[in-house]
This record gives sequence, C-alpha cells and structure tokens, in this order.
Amino acid sequence: MMKVIVDAYGGDNAPKEIVIGALKALSEREGFSIILTGDKGKLTALIDELSDQVPEDRLEIFDAPDVITCDMPPVEAVRKMRNSSLVKGLNLLNTDPDAKAFVSAGSTGAVLTAATLLVKRKPGIVRAGLAPVLPTVKGGRVILIDCGANSECKPEMLLNFAELGADMAKKYLGIPEPKIGLLSNGTEDTKGTDLTREAFKLIKGTELNFVGNIEAREILSGDIDVVVSDGFSGNIALKACEGTALAFMTLLKDGIMGGGIRAKIGYLLLKPVLKQIKKTMDYNAYGGAVFAGLEKTVIKAHGSSKAKSIAAAVLQAVDLNAEG
Amino acid sequence: MMKVIVDAYGGDNAPKEIVIGALKALSEREGFSIILTGDKGKLTALIDELSDQVPEDRLEIFDAPDVITCDMPPVEAVRKMRNSSLVKGLNLLNTDPDAKAFVSAGSTGAVLTAATLLVKRKPGIVRAGLAPVLPTVKGGRVILIDCGANSECKPEMLLNFAELGADMAKKYLGIPEPKIGLLSNGTEDTKGTDLTREAFKLIKGTELNFVGNIEAREILSGDIDVVVSDGFSGNIALKACEGTALAFMTLLKDGIMGGGIRAKIGYLLLKPVLKQIKKTMDYNAYGGAVFAGLEKTVIKAHGSSKAKSIAAAVLQAVDLNAEG
Repeated sequence: MMKVIVDAYGGDNAPKEIVIGALKALSEREGFSIILTGDKGKLTALIDELSDQVPEDRLEIFDAPDVITCDMPPVEAVRKMRNSSLVKGLNLLNTDPDAKAFVSAGSTGAVLTAATLLVKRKPGIVRAGLAPVLPTVKGGRVILIDCGANSECKPEMLLNFAELGADMAKKYLGIPEPKIGLLSNGTEDTKGTDLTREAFKLIKGTELNFVGNIEAREILSGDIDVVVSDGFSGNIALKACEGTALAFMTLLKDGIMGGGIRAKIGYLLLKPVLKQIKKTMDYNAYGGAVFAGLEKTVIKAHGSSKAKSIAAAVLQAVDLNAEG
Repeated sequence: MMKVIVDAYGGDNAPKEIVIGALKALSEREGFSIILTGDKGKLTALIDELSDQVPEDRLEIFDAPDVITCDMPPVEAVRKMRNSSLVKGLNLLNTDPDAKAFVSAGSTGAVLTAATLLVKRKPGIVRAGLAPVLPTVKGGRVILIDCGANSECKPEMLLNFAELGADMAKKYLGIPEPKIGLLSNGTEDTKGTDLTREAFKLIKGTELNFVGNIEAREILSGDIDVVVSDGFSGNIALKACEGTALAFMTLLKDGIMGGGIRAKIGYLLLKPVLKQIKKTMDYNAYGGAVFAGLEKTVIKAHGSSKAKSIAAAVLQAVDLNAEG
C-alpha cells in the first residue's frame, strides 16, 4: 500500500490541523496509508483526543521530536535539525520503498532546501521547480512552474519545467496534450529576455504542445494548461494574482459596508455567488504546490493550511502516484 | 502657455476618440493648449463635425499624414515613417520650447522606441522606464516602474527607476516622502536575484524612503507608493493584476447569470458597489503610463483608450508639468 508521509509539525496550525487533515484524507479515500512525522508522544495523545475511529492499520507515527521554526535560516535548519519532522520525514521518503510522497506546510525555504538536499532528482532534470495549481475562469486548472524554487534560471531549467509541468497536467489534471505557454512580456516570439528566448527555442524543439509566449494576463484565462517561468517571475505572477484577488475582496467588503441597506441586502442575495467565487479562487483548497522534478513526490502546502487543505494535499499526492 | 502634443492617429479608436478626448481636456482645465498631430485635412474636418465650440486659440493641428500601424516592427516604423503623427509629434516636442508633453495611445513598442530614439534623457538617467499608476485598496495610487520598456536591466537602472518613481509620486500624487519598495520574491533582504540584490544596496544608499523588498502581493495594498522592478517582471506583475481583475469580473458575471432570480436581484442592488469597484480598478481612467526619465513628459495611453482616458492622460501631462 502506498504511503504518504505528512510533516505533522510544519505550518502555522501544526500539529492539530495537520493531524485532522491527515485523518480526513484517510476517511475520504481508501488505498493508501499515512506516516505522520513529529513528536511521537504528543502526536499519540493528540490523535487519541481527536478521534476514536482512527484506522490504525493506515496511520503510523514516526518519531521526530525537533521542530524547525520559520525564523531559522533554511540551510542551517536542515543541516542542524536532523531530528526534525521535516528532515526525518524526507529521509524516510528516501529509504522506505512504499513511501511515495511527502507533504509539509512548513516554511517554503526549509521545505525546498531540505527536499533539494535530501531527495534525488529524476534523471535528466537539472533542477526541481515549485508548481502550484491555480483555478481558471473556465472552471479548469492551470499549473504554474516554477513559482519560487529557483530565482535565477538557465534555459535548460525552463525546458525541464515545461516537461515536468506537462507530465503533471497529464497525470494530475487528466489533460492528454496540455498546452504549454512560456511566461513573457508579450506574445511575439521575439519578446522576453535572453533567458526566455533561449528557452523558447528549446521548448519549441520538443514534442510538447507549445503555444509560445504568453502574457501574465492569460494565466487564469483557461486557455493554457501549463505556464512555464523562472522562479522569480513566477513568484511575482502568482503573488500578483493573489494580491489582486485579495484587493477585489477587500473593495467588495468595503463597498458593501459603506453602501447602506441596499448594498447589504444585495450582498445577502448575491452571497452564494460570492462564496462560490471565493471557493473557486482559493487554490489552497485544491492541494499544495508540487516540488516537481524529484524522484518522489514532495508537496508544499500553504503555511496557513487548515485541515481541509492538508487533506487536499494528501489526496493530491495520492493522485500523482496513482498507477496509470 | 504650456503645450501638450497629442498623437491623434495612435490607438484603436483614433482619430475620433483622441480628438474628443483632447477637446474634453481643454474644456475641463484652463492654462494649457493642445497640438494634435495627424492628417491636417481629416482632423480639421473631424473637429468641425464634432464641435462648434472649439477654443481655437488653444488647439493647433500639426500636419503628419503617415500612420504607424500596430503590425509594423517598431524600429522600422520609427525609422521609415518620418511623417507619422508619432515621429513628427516627438520631433516637435524636442524643438518647441513651450511643448512640455506628448501623449499617444499608439502601439507601446513604437511609442517607446520613438521616444527613446528621439527624446533626450534627463541628466544621469541611464534608461527611461514605463510607469503606470495603479489604484490601491486604500483609495490611493501606486506607481509601478518599469513595466515593460527594459526587459533586461542593470542595477543602476533600477536605482534610476526608484528616483524617477519617487519624483513622480511627489509631483503627481502629492506624496512628500513616497515609500519605495523593490519588487522581489520575498521580503527578506537576501531574497531575489543578483540584479535585485545589487539594486537593493544602491537604493538603500540613497536618501529615498526605501522600505526594502516587497512581494507582488503588496502592490495594490496601499502600503507602498512606488514599486521598482525590471521591465520584464514589472510587466508580468501588471498583467497578472489585470488578468486577475478580469477573471474576477468574469466569474462574477457568470455566477450572476447562472444564479437565478435571486442572484440577479442581488446584482441589481449591489450594482452601485460593483460599478464603483470597476471604476476604482480601471486604472486607464486615471491617465496613461508615464515614460519616465526623459527631458520632457511622454505618456503612453492604453491602446484601447476612449475619449475619457485620453483626456485623463492630457491632464496628467499638465499636472506633471505644473509649476511646483
């Protein structure tokens, strides 16, 4: 049975929400088991307290008493905190042949550093890329790779990201021939930087369904399945989308609060629609960002993840490792 | 009297909306005059047709019969179309001491290329940067510089953008000590690329009110007045914001259409609030993007500008040249 390792001590709401999320994932789907990494005594007590219906044959605890906090410099944290839930979890991922995936809501820097140092890359992959899955206006999803693992990239890395993103879109989104776009500052072939122009040629030379350069305006349009970028620009694109969505919600809230009784009734009537939009836009609900390019699946869930997002990330890990 | 030159043949809605916009700006504010560049015969006829209250002492036409279209490669267009409304307008900007600003809704590539080739830079400025002014959730504005004029930048250029943005925020937004943020993939000082880390040091060494690295999530927050970036990343940030705002509007529309009578009534009641949000978010209504760093003001209005945006861009040009 496939095992998913879950870092019970990573994230703002660890360990409680992580454990609830793990239990939730187990109750929602059969065919896999979970290993929680963290302080064994505390986790055992927490699980006892949370549920009397724990599927004991599907839930293990792997003792890892140290906790990496967000203020530790990533490299130092990974090197020194060998008994942390993060480092022990990733080492276990390496050594246990049934362990296929690792999920953590810990600090992005620490998770990426630890995964880079401890988990082997797939053959032919120069660097792994962080790939969140975002909603589109057409109701589908789009993969954005890389979103922050590699600030400075070489053209070969962007080629890798295109291949990894395409693979993920096939396996996880079920799109047979995913459309790949290269994030640039214009759609013409000549637009971009030396990096993107070189990467353009490399991706164009593959069998991938490459649609060429795309602008950031198109990311959420639903016309593209995989958006390829260096980690710096990808991070900016992702966070600009997040910031604008947040700005919109803030303006709406302020407008309703200041709009008198008419606006308030309007809001009540429109509430189901607005809730649905909020749900659609909340990409954390679909799982985490995949650190794509490693021999085994590593998923970084949002730091503020609650049980629902953790459960989604665990099931995402299961889906990514389902037998074709 | 200060003169603003307006490219009457630039943009999707040229020349009609441009001319209406110019007339609108004249009627809204005293103390400046406009020179329209374009086909003199056609423009004269158009103006006659549009209004019988043209303030003739404040409106001139400068004959420029050639039209640069969007499909022409910018450099070639600028080199060959010497009698175009764009090239003649910018040459006039150079030679007429009363001409302080030039406004065009023509293709970004052509306008930036022509301005770069034809208009002198301010002393000490390595490169000019494109600087749109965006709305923030707090009701203020934020300047984003550079948004696409320079795909590849050197640290000194980002320093220039910080200085130019600060100057614009003081003069145009009336902020005495504008807060300057450097767009990066994290807020820590060490985040970013070699470029941003070098630029960080340079900007930190100035008298500017530099708040350090900011994430794209903060662009619209209202906590920052000037966001400094290379043109590639700035363009991605700008367009990601645009795309998300559009996605939001599309989801809202689709939700209302599919939400039955309840949602439709809710929408009608909430309409003033939504209209206000749309107005707030529509940054083109505030004017155009300033091509900052040149000896005279060059403003690029959105290609789809209608009269209102053109008028706003003309008045923005007037404001930027107001005697301190």
